[in-house]
Amino acid sequence: MADLKLFYAPGACSLASHIALEEAGADFEAVRVDFRANEQRSPGYLAINPKGRVPALVVGEDVITENPAILRYVARAFPQAGLWPSDALDDARCAEWLAFLSSSVHPSYAHIRRPERYASDEAGRQDVVATGLRSAREFWEMVERKLEARSGQWAMGGDYSVVDPYLLVFWTWGNGSVLAYDMAADFPAWTAHARQMTGRPAVRRVFEREGLTLPA
Amino acid sequence: MADLKLFYAPGACSLASHIALEEAGADFEAVRVDFRANEQRSPGYLAINPKGRVPALVVGEDVITENPAILRYVARAFPQAGLWPSDALDDARCAEWLAFLSSSVHPSYAHIRRPERYASDEAGRQDVVATGLRSAREFWEMVERKLEARSGQWAMGGDYSVVDPYLLVFWTWGNGSVLAYDMAADFPAWTAHARQMTGRPAVRRVFEREGLTLPA
Repeated sequence: MADLKLFYAPGACSLASHIALEEAGADFEAVRVDFRANEQRSPGYLAINPKGRVPALVVGEDVITENPAILRYVARAFPQAGLWPSDALDDARCAEWLAFLSSSVHPSYAHIRRPERYASDEAGRQDVVATGLRSAREFWEMVERKLEARSGQWAMGGDYSVVDPYLLVFWTWGNGSVLAYDMAADFPAWTAHARQMTGRPAVRRVFEREGLTLPA
Repeated sequence: MADLKLFYAPGACSLASHIALEEAGADFEAVRVDFRANEQRSPGYLAINPKGRVPALVVGEDVITENPAILRYVARAFPQAGLWPSDALDDARCAEWLAFLSSSVHPSYAHIRRPERYASDEAGRQDVVATGLRSAREFWEMVERKLEARSGQWAMGGDYSVVDPYLLVFWTWGNGSVLAYDMAADFPAWTAHARQMTGRPAVRRVFEREGLTLPA
């Protein structure tokens, strides 16, 4: 196994890849990128990930970006951890969850958190935030309905997978100061999932390393 | 193999999954969803895909949504077509391309094509379109640079993969009336790739079925 180095920002979506590496029992270095100092736009970091985003996983001489790709890499590199389902349909369902979270759920939040990416003047940004608040709520509710409909305790049903830590990211965002949802009251299936995640030693270790508060 | 039915709209991002099924030699039914009649929001279609988007792949009693998931399913269900790389790092790179296209490149276009998703009043929508035009150009240029840097004729290097038809979707969007880029002049590596795609019988069959003009 090549040397592994994960670039993350505390509480950012990189939390998913961070937990997956810890679940896999990988020997890796966790490198914090300081968003308050705009370190993700520094020449040093842009040389690692020209997109200026986290997560980025350095694998020897290579760099993998995008959560769905890093999660897939970790699952394949550490097969004994069983983080990716083997059945063909479940495999696709796992990829479907990751794609839905990365291309719909995450961007809906970005419109609220980073409206400057999407509109240039102040009124436009306020409109983007207001509209994003409605979209995010719809996507959060779609996640809740998907979790209600599943057959077991984890996202994919009976077996834990890389989808579970990725879901936890968005639970913490729903619970955070930007969205400030009443997660326990309005998203009970998702909250039961988040609470269950806190029982996993890998999750507790990563929350402590990132300085985050565990879901209660 | 279960019965396969692909729901697509002509020229939409479902083109990627449509081509992949054809490349795989799959026996499938292609069902057109009429966006002009807003058929994607009809009760019949929402029962298939509650998100009201294409593509959706019906596999027997199941439905898979999201291009990255359908592309992965097709590649796994038809391994003889060799549409997904086997090496662990290439596997992750393939997932990285799909994630980048679905979560960054596609949404940048959606801000121009469907600003009503992101802003509510007319001025806000105009701002979203203007900002989206800048973002889309940046993402199209990132794709061009990634294609310049590759080692072979296809996106993943030497071997054709599910990334190639997905890339072709965004070439046609760059070439279309909304973005109206001079693809040959400004995106030469990508245009060489698109032209090479036209030599594939599966691509020609799907363009004819969807009523699209092949890249020239």
